[in-house]
Parts: sequence; structure tokens; C-alpha cells
Amino acid sequence: MEIKPGKLLESINSPEDLKKIDRAKLTQLSEELRNFIIDSVSVYGGHFASSLGVVELTIALHYVFNAPYDQLVWDVGHQAYGHKILTGRRNEFYTNRVYKGISGFPKRNESKYDAFGVGHSSTSISAALGMAVASAIKDESDRQHIAVIGDGAMTGGLAFEAMNHAGVANSNLLIILNDNNMSIDPNVGALKDYLTDITTSHTYNRLKDEAWKILGKLNKLGGPNAQELASKFENSVKSFLLKQSNLFESLNLRYFGPVDGHDVDHLVSILSDMKDIKGPKLLHCITTKGKGFEPAEKEQTKWHATGSFDKVTGAIHKKSFAEPQPPKYQDVFGHTLVELAKANEKIVGITPAMPSGSSMNIMMEALPDRAFDVGIAEQHAVTFSAGLATQGLVPFCNIYSTFMQRAYDQVIHDVAIQNLPVNFCLDRAGFAGADGPTHHGAYDLAYMRCVPNMIVAAPLNESELRDMMFTAQMPREKKAFTIRYPRGEGVMPDWRTPMKAMEIGKGEEIVEGKDIAVLTIGHIGNLAIEASKELLEDGFSVAVYNMRFVKPIDENLLHTVFEKFDHVITIEDGTIIGGFGSAVLEFMAEHNYKAHIRRLGIPDNIIEHGTQAELQHQCGFDKQGIKNAVRELLTIEKKEMV
Amino acid sequence: MEIKPGKLLESINSPEDLKKIDRAKLTQLSEELRNFIIDSVSVYGGHFASSLGVVELTIALHYVFNAPYDQLVWDVGHQAYGHKILTGRRNEFYTNRVYKGISGFPKRNESKYDAFGVGHSSTSISAALGMAVASAIKDESDRQHIAVIGDGAMTGGLAFEAMNHAGVANSNLLIILNDNNMSIDPNVGALKDYLTDITTSHTYNRLKDEAWKILGKLNKLGGPNAQELASKFENSVKSFLLKQSNLFESLNLRYFGPVDGHDVDHLVSILSDMKDIKGPKLLHCITTKGKGFEPAEKEQTKWHATGSFDKVTGAIHKKSFAEPQPPKYQDVFGHTLVELAKANEKIVGITPAMPSGSSMNIMMEALPDRAFDVGIAEQHAVTFSAGLATQGLVPFCNIYSTFMQRAYDQVIHDVAIQNLPVNFCLDRAGFAGADGPTHHGAYDLAYMRCVPNMIVAAPLNESELRDMMFTAQMPREKKAFTIRYPRGEGVMPDWRTPMKAMEIGKGEEIVEGKDIAVLTIGHIGNLAIEASKELLEDGFSVAVYNMRFVKPIDENLLHTVFEKFDHVITIEDGTIIGGFGSAVLEFMAEHNYKAHIRRLGIPDNIIEHGTQAELQHQCGFDKQGIKNAVRELLTIEKKEMV
Repeated sequence: MEIKPGKLLESINSPEDLKKIDRAKLTQLSEELRNFIIDSVSVYGGHFASSLGVVELTIALHYVFNAPYDQLVWDVGHQAYGHKILTGRRNEFYTNRVYKGISGFPKRNESKYDAFGVGHSSTSISAALGMAVASAIKDESDRQHIAVIGDGAMTGGLAFEAMNHAGVANSNLLIILNDNNMSIDPNVGALKDYLTDITTSHTYNRLKDEAWKILGKLNKLGGPNAQELASKFENSVKSFLLKQSNLFESLNLRYFGPVDGHDVDHLVSILSDMKDIKGPKLLHCITTKGKGFEPAEKEQTKWHATGSFDKVTGAIHKKSFAEPQPPKYQDVFGHTLVELAKANEKIVGITPAMPSGSSMNIMMEALPDRAFDVGIAEQHAVTFSAGLATQGLVPFCNIYSTFMQRAYDQVIHDVAIQNLPVNFCLDRAGFAGADGPTHHGAYDLAYMRCVPNMIVAAPLNESELRDMMFTAQMPREKKAFTIRYPRGEGVMPDWRTPMKAMEIGKGEEIVEGKDIAVLTIGHIGNLAIEASKELLEDGFSVAVYNMRFVKPIDENLLHTVFEKFDHVITIEDGTIIGGFGSAVLEFMAEHNYKAHIRRLGIPDNIIEHGTQAELQHQCGFDKQGIKNAVRELLTIEKKEMV
Repeated sequence: MEIKPGKLLESINSPEDLKKIDRAKLTQLSEELRNFIIDSVSVYGGHFASSLGVVELTIALHYVFNAPYDQLVWDVGHQAYGHKILTGRRNEFYTNRVYKGISGFPKRNESKYDAFGVGHSSTSISAALGMAVASAIKDESDRQHIAVIGDGAMTGGLAFEAMNHAGVANSNLLIILNDNNMSIDPNVGALKDYLTDITTSHTYNRLKDEAWKILGKLNKLGGPNAQELASKFENSVKSFLLKQSNLFESLNLRYFGPVDGHDVDHLVSILSDMKDIKGPKLLHCITTKGKGFEPAEKEQTKWHATGSFDKVTGAIHKKSFAEPQPPKYQDVFGHTLVELAKANEKIVGITPAMPSGSSMNIMMEALPDRAFDVGIAEQHAVTFSAGLATQGLVPFCNIYSTFMQRAYDQVIHDVAIQNLPVNFCLDRAGFAGADGPTHHGAYDLAYMRCVPNMIVAAPLNESELRDMMFTAQMPREKKAFTIRYPRGEGVMPDWRTPMKAMEIGKGEEIVEGKDIAVLTIGHIGNLAIEASKELLEDGFSVAVYNMRFVKPIDENLLHTVFEKFDHVITIEDGTIIGGFGSAVLEFMAEHNYKAHIRRLGIPDNIIEHGTQAELQHQCGFDKQGIKNAVRELLTIEKKEMV
């Protein structure tokens, strides 16, 4: 279904078309663009509240600047729907986040208007600064480079590193701070408080104005020492206020604002003025996440991303089921953590800005003194956890698999080298689904497995997740413990199983068989179980082993497998380079086993977005892929034997 | 040789002993401690200038605080020699950085006084905050938690993430900003300028004092509107100056200072006062790197770390050689980059605070507009490089292998997913030597190899490094290119070989043989060549293959190898989990080869410090280790065949 755009919006197929619109009509256009986004997302789902918050900003930016010559980098990028719609993708917008459709994020190979691909946060200033410095080297002094970054993303260390460099690089860089007081969940930290401060009663600008006014009056007062004092004071204050009194000006970024990010006409004025100011500068825009759709303004976290909904009532469409359904793994994590933490007072929970995404919010509500949202700050989350662990506490640090990439050094340097018993729970491991390549948790088994003092596990189902968490919180002096599990639902509607300790490094045979062994890790093993049943009907007797631990890997079980089977398949929802399958190869090499082995997993290229099932199918490790692999491996072998 | 301590220092074997010293004598003790460090390092070498800069601070901290109950975290840690000497390690200090001796960095399993192991920068605030929050949870409200961090380390994003959290955590945290305007090289960036600003003419404190003074006088003036104005202004200014006018206060850290970091008596006073102030706070100390040893004060980069030297003349002892010696790999990189950049105007160089360590300083001097020191900011270095690459420039981003761990997400998310042609040169790959486990470049082959769109190469010698760099700067639309090479010297005294393009993914046989094949990657291959010569004398005919590329791996060459040989050894100076050897296993599995294979490399545990040769010996892949492995593999096989 194509969404019908408003009359003005209908005429815009590129920023050039936008520039033809009369400035007085930009408010109307804002309304049309907002409605188009609401209509589209109400039918197809997607990220929502962030794009609504920057409708006016998006229009103003494309009205004033000259993309793609001027380069516009959207931080994170889930707010870029308006940008996509205005840059020639309105008619394909209904394919947003759908397999083989357009991406939910800006993407360089999708459009020349997408200057930099995004998905993770806090990259925009670095990237735009790189572009700005390149323009300086190429003598393109008229070229503009704009990073649009939220106040949440601004807490990420990468953004700070980039500002530290930008402040001395003297390039043509404009940072737009899109301040809505939110990341996915409410933004936290001292920076947020600071931004609130300067936008409320004692604003920087108000003080500056007041200071000038008062100093002016003092000059006129003419009391005995007034003039001298005033002039002396003025010099100190002027340089101080202008140069140092603002966090951003401290970093040598000229600070402008705060301005109303929903006043499109004023934004056009101010951006036009700023265009002529050389050097690094920052415009502080105040916006409302979800602006213009009341339910989203009221419940911003809930409406950060949504499935389809009724745009009149605001009711989100939910599938209904006759039978009880399995829970999401994240909720099993969240509830289990509270259950454990109530019994073990040493347990603490840490999330970098994902309370609702990881379900850490359940513990933050139940035990607020022992659960911490540290902001978009994965690096800090890990080193902070290491600090907690040195004091005998039992941290459960929950980070999406893809975001853990950002704390890799902290995992190695602060946790593993010191052999500290920190527990990492990696949510969204494997395919992220509609969020696509920036969010797939494809590399964790490979990059965690090569780190010493690290246990790496993945549960087959809800019950195993609970047992692994139970095991991870038991007294343990050493070793970090990584538990990775996928986005979405498990397989056990009745998931509140009694918890028991699990032997670390112990797998099990879950389906008996005699022709071939399938070794699996984690939730994906459920597909292998199903496949084995169907294969049995076709006459193939497939044994399935749930290895549970990639490290330490169950060597006894592997000896059993390789003594019994000449044909072995490994399955993982992670990269086949260096992952679980490679761990099995290393075991084989060490013990000189010679089985025919085939490894299924994510191949060595960038996998785009789609449903998890679509992507697993594409990569050949859905149920059908497993069946094919079994057949092929057994058939090839028969041929060789002939 | 044991270094003789001064009379006061001799009496100190723990902080308790220090506390018995009369406060009036702390200046004398400072001198003795400084001399002990100078004497020790002049004989044994080591990090130098940083520890000299914090002598007084170290004494004051241990005098005032109650370690180990109070927890002291040294950022980076190469400034902690004084701390080690005062906490019971004076007599072993001569084993500093020596194989099986004490570590050059604080280390938890070395001393109860080392609250947190360090080596990489910017971790201290996160770690100390973790400890502080743990104390709060455990109701230990009198416990102090101190992070000592340099102004260079403060530019690392992790430090900012931690401050953002610390500002709202309201824990007992004291940050000591050790501001000496330096990291290893002069510190760069807007933050440095800011710190210089507040410590020079218009200091925060001076302005604050002046403001109060003037406001006081205004009150007395009594002109027509003066009082009203003054009171109105005072309210604005007071809250503003106190709460927001300072970058750190913006983040809700109470700011104190700047103070003279070499006035030990004043430091004792101020630290004693601060002890009673609850909540997160920062003391800004101005120190001089190299303080008290004139040559080091004058040339701080040169004296950051040093070999043995003459403490009277300041002459650093150098080995002299009759024959020309091979250059350091870093210098081959530095000179070759300039050579290439002069011919190819698209080349740009990027280093995160390692101009002298990576030899990027050669390009910074030769082509200052195209070479960038971005500060201690590995994440930014990579994303900034990605931004440059989008504009058609050819970035060479040089980061030590161990520090690249900190930019792993940026490599995946900003470079590889976008398939941008960024060149990464990873120095200090393999064993770092005396710096030990925090600095070993052990994981790069494993963590880089599993990333799509990534070429991973390692040169056998200087000439190959030059050819790889030449190849990396040739027009290439896609793929990132990683070149990793070790710390220290290569093998070619005459290294300025003419450069030529190298076929990507092509290895070569460098020694012919018939009994066994040894596959090597990078500089370590030189050991295999030597071993093969000696083995030939013992009757073993060993073929050596220099694979050059871990990815793409030379499949044609591997087919040749596995068709010809039943015995294969792989050698790498990286983790054997998931690294080069595993790449060979994956090839074997895909093509169903059944050779006996043994992988040599860094085993799955934390390897401590020592010379590279000592550590290679320990891990069994020095020349002798290679010879043993060849003999064993061939002998076992013979037994099996009997």
C-alpha cells in the first residue's frame, strides 16, 4: 500500500524540489511530512518518535544547505525518515526495513544523500569532521559538513573524542545538538542535567545578555570606582563567559542556542546565518521526541519504535494467540535477574542506555539501588562493572552483542587480563532482523572466544538461560562469563523453570542418531532439532548435540562425537570465520580427528536487513538449510566412497 | 644491583611507615624518592618522566589516604613507580619490567595496594567509580576512591563517559587531574587548550575571587541602582559561575584547583580537606613531566621511557654496532609513508597520540597539513579516517595492535560495513615485550579476520612492509586493509628497497623442503627460516611458506601445500584461538584435507612481560620451539605409522 503524501510533499522528489517551495509554506510542509511518517509507520511499523522530533529540522537543513555537496550526517540514523522521504525515497518508503527494501538507517549505497552509514550512536561528529578536513585539504572551502546528534548520543565517548579534535581542527563543521532529553529511554547523566540547566532558568544566553546589560548600566552609573571596576570586570567576564562558561565553548566550539527545533522558519533563518560562520560550531536545538503524535509525545520510550498501529486511537496492533506464547529472551533475563538478585545481595545490574531494550528496567524498578543505567557508554559500562567486581559484587552487565564491539578493549584489558568475575549478557546475538547489518550480533562468538579467562555460553532455550544466569551468579573467584542470546522469543511458554547450577563447559546430546552429528550452539539448536525430526522421516538418522559452551568447549563430548561420527555439521548464528565451528576444527586438529565437517553460520560478508527467518534462510542455516547440508554432506561422502 | 635509597625512604616499607614521617620532612622524602627513581631507571631503564612528575602527589596521597582500604587507581600506570616503591616493592624494584620480575604497571595480583590493573589509558574514573558505588552499596561511607588521571588520558572517550556517570552517581570519588600538558607526545586538542586557559591568565579561581570582591564593593557603592543590580547580578553569576562555568562543574564534579603538584605540603593540606567533602570531585594539579631531572624536563617525549643512561650527563646508553643494523619497523612505516605521500597527494596520516611511537611524526613534520594527531582517541581516529575515505582520500591510520581493540566497533561499523578503503597499520603486533599483557598485540589476527571486507596482512620484513603500504595506497574502491607488524627491528639493514605492487592474497614458498611444510605469517617467519636451515642439518627437510595474507588467504598456495604435505605447522605471533592457524584449519575443512597439523602461537592465557624472545620461547614458537615442533610432529607420525 502506497501512502498518499500531501500536496506539497507530493511535489518533492529531491532537495532541489524542496528549495522551490515558498518559505512561508514550510510549516504546512512540516505537517505533511509528519503525517506521511505517521501514516507510513502506522501501517508498516518502524522507528517512529525520533523522526517525528526532527521534521522541522530536516526540512530546514535541506532548505538551507545544498546536499549532497554539503554533507549531512545523521547520528544513529533512526531519525532520518524525513530525510529519506525528502531525498527521493518517498515512493519506496513502504519497503522500509523490509527484506530487500530500503534500510531503516542512512546508508551510503542507498542514496548519494546519505553521506555516512549509521546505526550505532555517537559517530557523526567524527565522520563529519573527517569530511570537513578532507574538504579543507581539497580546497573546497564553501562546503558545509553537518552532524545531527542527539543529547543521548552525546554521552558516548566517541562524540567527546571527536569534539576535542574538532575544537582545534578549525574546519567547516556544524554540529546540531538535537536535545530531546531522551535516548531510547530517558537520557541519564551529568551532561543531560547540564543541558537541562542551560535550557531552563539560567540559560547561558540570558546570563550573557544580562551581563552585558548590567555592565552597560554600570558604566553609566559613574559612582566613585564604578567605571574602573566595571571595565576591569568586563574584561574578565567577557573573555571568560564567551570562551569558557559553556561546556562546548570550553572545547572551542562556538555555541548557539538553545533554539526551538519545531519552529521551521526560525531554523531556516538561524541555519542561513550559521552557514557564513567559519570553523567548528554547535547549534543547540530543543525538540520533542514524538512531536505531533500525542501518544508518542507522552510515552516516548514505548513509541521509539513500533509495529503497526491505529493512528486515530494510538492502539498498537498486537497479534493475538489462542495458546500462551514463549516470552522474549530479554524478559526472561530481566525477570530472572531480579529473582536472583533478591536472593543474592551481591548482584548488581548494568545497562548502557538500554533499560527497556534489555529489560534491565525490571531490576531498576525492583531494586533501584543496585541497577544502573550508565548512558550510551558501553566502554564505561564494562570498566565500571570491572570496578564493581573488584569489590566482590556480582555484576550482570547487559549489552547488545553488536554494541559490545564498542567495549572490546575494556573486556580484554579491564576484565579478562585481571581475571575478574564479570558476567556479560549479550542480547540481540545473531541476526538483529529489521535493523540490519549495523545491528547484527554476528561477531561475538569469534571475538569473545579468543580472549583468555573468558567463558562463552549460549542457551538453547529459556530454561537454559535461567540456569546459566544462576550459574554465573554463584561464587566464582575468576573468569568472565559471557551469555549470548537472540532478539525475540524463545520456545518455552512455561518458562519459569526452577533454576539449577550448570556444569561449566558441559554440553549434551539432545537427539540420538547414527548417520551424522549436528553440533549446535544456542537458540539456533531448536532448528536443528526440528530438522532432525524431518530428516528421520526421510531416512537420515541425525544426532543433535547442544554444546551450550563455545568456551570451554566440552572436549569429552567432542571425543564421543568424533569417535562415533565421520560426518559432522556445526551450526551457529554467528560468523563462520573464527566462531564456534572453528573451535570444533581446532579441537579436531589438536586431537587429529579426520571427520568430514561442514560449518553453517553467517558467511564472510555483510548481511542486509530482513526478518531473522529470512536471513537465516539466505545464509543456509534455517531448518531447510540444515536439512540440505545434512543431505549434501552424506551424499558427497557416498559418492566419494563409490 | 640494588639501588641505595635515602635515609627516610629506607625506613618506608608500607604506607603505614610513610605516615610516621614528620610532615615537615616530606620534601626531603620527595627528593629521596625522586633520586631512587632516577637511579633505578638510569641503571635498568623503564618509564621515567611520568613517575618523576608525580613524586609529591604520590607521597601526599599515601600520607593522607589509607590504602589499601582507600582505593587508589592510577590511570595508564606508567607513573606509578613511586607508588610501587612506597608500597613494599622498593627492594624488588630492580626487577621492574624484567621477565618474571615486577610489572611496569600497577597490577592487582602483584600487590594489595594496586587497586586496579592498568596499561591502557582513561580507565581510572570508571574503575574507581565502580569501587565507589560498591562501597556505597556496602555502606562503607568512609571509604575513599581516587582516580589519578593525566590530561592526555582525559581526552579518551571512556574518561568522559565515566565523568558523565560520576556526576550523577553521588559517590565518594576523587579525580586527580594530573595536568602536565603531555601524553607521551605533547597533548593535543581543545581540552588541552582549555586546561591551559584555566591555569594561565584567566583562571577560574581568580575570576571567582575577583567576582566576589567586586560584587562586595558594588554593594558598598550605594549608587542609585547599584545595590539592586549587584544583587540581581550576583544571583545569576553565583549560580552560573559555580555550577556551569567550568567544564568539570558542568558535569557536576566539584572542581578544585589548579594547585602546584610539586608542593607536597600544600598537597597534604588540600587532600586532607577534600577527604571530608562527600560526592564526586576533581582536583586539578599542575605538574611537570620529568620534574627534577633536567634533560627529562626539557625533552619530555624522549624521556617518557628510556633505556639505561648516565644520570650525570643525561647521555642515554646506546649499543654500538660495527655493522649497520636493521631499522625499526615503525621507522620503515614513517619514512615510507612520507615517500608515498609525496607522490600521492590523496594520502593522509592519522595517529591517536602516538606520533613518536608510530613514527607518524615524520609525516607530521614533512606534510603537516595531511598528518593528524587526534589525541588519545582511537575510536575517533578510526571513524575520522572513515570520514576522510568517503571523500576519496587515502587514510593510513596507525594504531598499536593492542589499542586497536578500543576501536573495534568503529572498524566494523564505520569502515567494514560501509566497505571503505581505509588502511590500518597496526604497530606492536605480537608481543609488546616489557610492557606486558596489557600491551601485547595478541588478538588482532583473530578479531580482524572475522570482519567482512577486510584484508589482513603481515610483512615478513621491511621490504614487504614497504610493498604492502605501496599496494594499500594504490587506487582501490573498496575493502579495508590491515597491515600488522611487530615492535622493534626488522631484518634488513639496507631497507630502502624499491617499492612494487603486491598481489593481494598471494603468499610464496621461501624455503623448499619435502618432509613438512611450515606456514608462517609476518616477521615471525624469519625464525622459521632459521629453524629450517638448522633442521636441514639434522636431516629434516622443511619447506617454509610466507603466507603474507591471513585474509584473503592464498588458497592456490594452500592447495599446493596440502596436496604435497601430510605434516603442516602454522606459526603466528598471535592467539592460536581463531587466528592464522585457524584460518588454515577452515581451509582444510572446506576442502576436506586431512594433514597432521600443529598450530604454534600465543596460547589461551595471559602472557606476562619479558623480552619478545623470552616470551616467544615460553610459548614455544621461537627458533627452538619451531624445531621441537617439527621434530615432534614428524616423530609422532612415524610412531603412528609403525
